[in-house]
Amino acid sequence: MTDFPKSIKSLVEYFERLPGIGPKTAVRLVFYLLTTPKNFVDDFALNLQKLKTMVKTCEICFGVSESEICDICKNEKRDKSKICVVERSIDLMAIEKVGGFDGVYHVLGGVINPLEHISPDDLKLNELFDRLEGVKELIIATNPTMEGEATALYISKKVREIKPSLLISRIGRGLPIGADIEFADQATLSRAFEGRQKI
Amino acid sequence: MTDFPKSIKSLVEYFERLPGIGPKTAVRLVFYLLTTPKNFVDDFALNLQKLKTMVKTCEICFGVSESEICDICKNEKRDKSKICVVERSIDLMAIEKVGGFDGVYHVLGGVINPLEHISPDDLKLNELFDRLEGVKELIIATNPTMEGEATALYISKKVREIKPSLLISRIGRGLPIGADIEFADQATLSRAFEGRQKI
Repeated sequence: MTDFPKSIKSLVEYFERLPGIGPKTAVRLVFYLLTTPKNFVDDFALNLQKLKTMVKTCEICFGVSESEICDICKNEKRDKSKICVVERSIDLMAIEKVGGFDGVYHVLGGVINPLEHISPDDLKLNELFDRLEGVKELIIATNPTMEGEATALYISKKVREIKPSLLISRIGRGLPIGADIEFADQATLSRAFEGRQKI
Repeated sequence: MTDFPKSIKSLVEYFERLPGIGPKTAVRLVFYLLTTPKNFVDDFALNLQKLKTMVKTCEICFGVSESEICDICKNEKRDKSKICVVERSIDLMAIEKVGGFDGVYHVLGGVINPLEHISPDDLKLNELFDRLEGVKELIIATNPTMEGEATALYISKKVREIKPSLLISRIGRGLPIGADIEFADQATLSRAFEGRQKI
């Protein structure tokens, strides 16, 4: 049995380390690249290299940005009195894609997770507490997971100590649109009942 | 709605152009890369660039190789009197992974496909006909698709003209191991009956 040439094998290994890409997909991607023009692969490589040098985190909200202050924090039309707290920049982008929200964000950089040794000090929590002046509403949009809920609780408790007048809300949890009650898990269903709204 | 920073957006576009990677996966991959150490991304980029400069095609079988003659064609233990014809290098690698086959290969570089304007002249067919001296067996392992079957037929016809004594075979077609007859398509089932073997 003869193996792949070394340069193919090592590139396959890099693709395999990406989330959701298994050994077979990695091989398929590399062989696909072999059929593309050389300048496509070169530009791909160049863009990869640029990623880490160009992308910084915003000094205010810690979202991804190519400048010191991101476009959202810079934007004078955004309502600085509303802060939406998210775990990661990718969540911020998902909310931006929907539109609707005209406030600003705060990216925690993760959630409190004792099992993975992530304590409140590892997140941008103090930075959040330091920017509450002039803020009227805090929307906590961490993920509806155990850790996300615990982090939301931790934030709301702390913020209430610092600024009791602040309106704190948590994004709604319940059945996703298009879901089937029959197949919903217990935790989601019980949340959907707790969060029922008058019609 | 604020969009991704430019360097993220352009890298997302490169990932999106890879087969099987949709817009959401592409975004997830780029945000994953943002969390990895800079040297991982740099090495990934370097390996990408190396791919096209290092990988050539073997002058004999047209499989991928880092030298002018690939490791299989170079190997004195491989039986040069048996040639297995495949569409692409990735098929060759799949067969090599199984082991078993001790002959050599011939990579066509595709299949005859009039709809996509791929004629016999676009493939390494003449190169195959030119290397039949000393060959005793030809195993045609093009894919069991319409085009793969047509190409197999074309090759067997031509080869029979050039060298009538040659043993030509086609890889077996039928139900894959682990499959369910209930869910098999008609073409596969009828092939499985045609290819039935005495036990």
